[in-house]
Amino acid sequence: MTREKIYLFDTTLRDGQQTPGIDFSVEDKIAIAAMLDEFGLDYVEGGYPGANPTDTAFFAKKRTSRAAFVAFGMTKRAGVSASNDPGLSQLLQAESDAVCLVAKTWDYHVKVALGCTNDENLDSIRESVEAVAAAGKLPMVDCEHFFDGYKANPEYAIACAKTAYEAGARWVVLCDTNGGTQPPEIRDIVQAVIAAGVPGSSLGIHAHNDTGQAVANSLAAVEAGVRQIQGTLNGIGERCGNANLVTIIPTLCLKEAYSARFETSIDTEKLVELTRLSHAFDELLNRSPDHQAPYVGASAFATKAGIHASALLKDPKTYEHVVPDSVGNFRKVMVSDQGGKANFINALKRRGIEVDKQDPRLDKLIAIVKEREATGYAYEGADASFELLARRTLGSVPDFFAIDGFRVMVERRFDANGHLKTVSEAVVKLSIDGARIMSVAEGDGPVNALDLALRKDLGKYQTEIDDLELVDFKVRILNGGTEAITRVLIESTDNTGVRWWTVGVSENIIDASFQALMDSVVYKLMKNRQLAGKIAAE
Amino acid sequence: MTREKIYLFDTTLRDGQQTPGIDFSVEDKIAIAAMLDEFGLDYVEGGYPGANPTDTAFFAKKRTSRAAFVAFGMTKRAGVSASNDPGLSQLLQAESDAVCLVAKTWDYHVKVALGCTNDENLDSIRESVEAVAAAGKLPMVDCEHFFDGYKANPEYAIACAKTAYEAGARWVVLCDTNGGTQPPEIRDIVQAVIAAGVPGSSLGIHAHNDTGQAVANSLAAVEAGVRQIQGTLNGIGERCGNANLVTIIPTLCLKEAYSARFETSIDTEKLVELTRLSHAFDELLNRSPDHQAPYVGASAFATKAGIHASALLKDPKTYEHVVPDSVGNFRKVMVSDQGGKANFINALKRRGIEVDKQDPRLDKLIAIVKEREATGYAYEGADASFELLARRTLGSVPDFFAIDGFRVMVERRFDANGHLKTVSEAVVKLSIDGARIMSVAEGDGPVNALDLALRKDLGKYQTEIDDLELVDFKVRILNGGTEAITRVLIESTDNTGVRWWTVGVSENIIDASFQALMDSVVYKLMKNRQLAGKIAAE
Repeated sequence: MTREKIYLFDTTLRDGQQTPGIDFSVEDKIAIAAMLDEFGLDYVEGGYPGANPTDTAFFAKKRTSRAAFVAFGMTKRAGVSASNDPGLSQLLQAESDAVCLVAKTWDYHVKVALGCTNDENLDSIRESVEAVAAAGKLPMVDCEHFFDGYKANPEYAIACAKTAYEAGARWVVLCDTNGGTQPPEIRDIVQAVIAAGVPGSSLGIHAHNDTGQAVANSLAAVEAGVRQIQGTLNGIGERCGNANLVTIIPTLCLKEAYSARFETSIDTEKLVELTRLSHAFDELLNRSPDHQAPYVGASAFATKAGIHASALLKDPKTYEHVVPDSVGNFRKVMVSDQGGKANFINALKRRGIEVDKQDPRLDKLIAIVKEREATGYAYEGADASFELLARRTLGSVPDFFAIDGFRVMVERRFDANGHLKTVSEAVVKLSIDGARIMSVAEGDGPVNALDLALRKDLGKYQTEIDDLELVDFKVRILNGGTEAITRVLIESTDNTGVRWWTVGVSENIIDASFQALMDSVVYKLMKNRQLAGKIAAE
Repeated sequence: MTREKIYLFDTTLRDGQQTPGIDFSVEDKIAIAAMLDEFGLDYVEGGYPGANPTDTAFFAKKRTSRAAFVAFGMTKRAGVSASNDPGLSQLLQAESDAVCLVAKTWDYHVKVALGCTNDENLDSIRESVEAVAAAGKLPMVDCEHFFDGYKANPEYAIACAKTAYEAGARWVVLCDTNGGTQPPEIRDIVQAVIAAGVPGSSLGIHAHNDTGQAVANSLAAVEAGVRQIQGTLNGIGERCGNANLVTIIPTLCLKEAYSARFETSIDTEKLVELTRLSHAFDELLNRSPDHQAPYVGASAFATKAGIHASALLKDPKTYEHVVPDSVGNFRKVMVSDQGGKANFINALKRRGIEVDKQDPRLDKLIAIVKEREATGYAYEGADASFELLARRTLGSVPDFFAIDGFRVMVERRFDANGHLKTVSEAVVKLSIDGARIMSVAEGDGPVNALDLALRKDLGKYQTEIDDLELVDFKVRILNGGTEAITRVLIESTDNTGVRWWTVGVSENIIDASFQALMDSVVYKLMKNRQLAGKIAAE
């Protein structure tokens, strides 16, 4: 059976830019467009050339190679011809393959926002679409407020969509601009538009998440006949966000209800890049990925219940709605205070630590983890600290060195030229084989100074940690208020490319950071020995 | 027209407890049950008495007054009578109004997990429901894996549901345990169950968010005939979470598609508490509320676009799908680098600052805010720092005092008894009217020490800040890695009950914290003067 194609239209760089707290630079836009293009979307909308300097600069050249590169803009104003409208002219001059015109389709907005007659608005739609086609670009029309407009005046909303279609728009996109339309309404209204003569193969859907149903509304529209979906990476967008393409794509590709009838431009080999794409985008936005995100979240295939965990390990398929690998994610049976013994044994096994179920040291380890998690440690996110704790409790980590103390000083004062400056300095005192080593370092802040001082002189181990690098640092305040506990997570790497996370918890942020730094260094020394052992054994 | 009632069943304390990273204490459960009861839900499921000490202790007494208090547990094992099953006996002894029994309805799980025959499982369901009723409690049955079970063996899945119903279960809840079922499948399968003889008025839906459609699946089930919805506060739950009641409730109450036909136990006066409920729950979980959450998120009714913002202020109804007040949220036109001049004027006006559109100091303020936000400041979340910056730029904040410098020291060392201890000490030097004041303080950590030293002696202003209290402290690492910038947000309050947020940004966390602390103190002094002015004027 031939499957119908669902076209994917990304508006991360245009509607996604309306997200509170998100503001892309030209460089950000170039990087994101490349990610989207590489992933295989059909259309990448880049912004509104002419509306602001960033978007104008971004459209100075074409930024995609496979995907059609789309510029967004408004239909011409009433009372001027398309060729005399400066906004439309600038839009047509932008380097794009396609132009998506936003058109008013709610008669109230035509009157209040445009201040023209309903017929003048239809003329603007027709002439603007024709001008885009005449400029050699693919025309599309976003029908703004379509569903609310339809409820207020169905004939006029449909007239707008039909005018766009008949003027030659490749796609007529029905937008739920205010985001409040419900799936059954979406189905009914899409069917009415198709019945009025705009074929589903020319219709798109643009949904917002104001009732938590942007994904469902997009799929309801597909069910009713539309064949293009607009959305954004990780569902960013104005207010509650746009339809999340990272959720919609695997649903279309992997869920029988759709995959039996439809196909997209994302093939199986690309789909396994989905988790990486989603996390790379969050990285670029400089925010933590949502653990509970469908398909790509760290918890999407995680289980912490003891009983479920053992059943899951026996037969994962009956507990997972799709195979985690298919979207580049993985099954996770968590080390956590809800976890049973089987969980622990499994977590240790994955780290190459074999321990007997009856071993009393295992009970001790479980007790320590539960106790520490109760005070704020989070071993779920700090694999290296967990492994270190496990190996220590099971008795196989050498005492490489001992910390005798440290001191950190931060001073803000006027320098000799009368400028205020802040200096951070750290002293670390440690002993190796009974010999005392003292190091002092200045840094960009107290933690940086402490890190530099700790790693400045590790005696006979120094050459071993030369390639150790701190790559990320996260701070979370637990409890809040005045009795706050600070949890620090540190990500480290070395020239083997492996990355590991360590954790420290204290009411004192410097103390918590030092614990995590220490764990990272000791983990590195332990890892070096395991690697040497493996090489020797080969 | 009489509207049908949709019953609301909360499982925050039971299924929500499976959320990675969430683990409730008995005290947490008591507090949450009270919140849910007060809000007006029909059923509050508290946990699984007998499965763990927390839940057993929680069910030592009834924890709700209006809502039915529900205990969760398994049907009796095959091969023993209901009265001889120790798990079921413990469940029946728990102090609850109702018992929700989980039953296998997927034949494969009956064989593999229970290891009994299909008929024995039907017997277990029947006898367990009858035992619950005989104990004087309302019986309900959660049909685990119902939708996947139906796809594998529709006759058997329906036989399970029917057995539960005919044995007297008040509610037969169809669970999408793996969370992968799509809305059209939900509709079809619910209709099939009703056609087979279990009336919709006895059916419930339990949906998970693995394809981002838990809300849509719940509503699709209602569309098909079910009359009870299970969900959790803020959608917490295993993997990607359960259906979010905080989204479902206002959708049922406010959206015409449902409110015309259905009613719930949440009346209009309770609905305005929704935002507060959602945020109070996050507070209890000690996590930041999701800004983009439908209805209750800080961004749910926010706009940052200059053009939209002016239109929104003209006629909010055409840009908002519901009235923000109806759920206790509010419209927000944001101070942000995307905001136009109108936005700024409006933000200032709300703080009682009148400024002319043509005033060059306004352009200067906008430029400073944009420049600072580019370096990591977030004025959206720090109203007091924004107001202070605005009033300073517009020339109306006195220089109360000058900071000449500070020094913070954190030392970890062995004390006289050989115990490791960490000491934090801060010195602050400031001038008031030319006179130097130096203060020193020890604290629980460097920021606490700095806060104590700064507020220890403020000379002639000291009595004015006696009631100033630091209530929350948040740290965010921007950029990450080694060139990390730290943003600190501090929440303060005083005995007027007003709360204000201030921000500091620096590569040095101590520096950033000091900026935010300073802003808080200066804001307090400024606020005192405004208040005194107001009182004098009255």
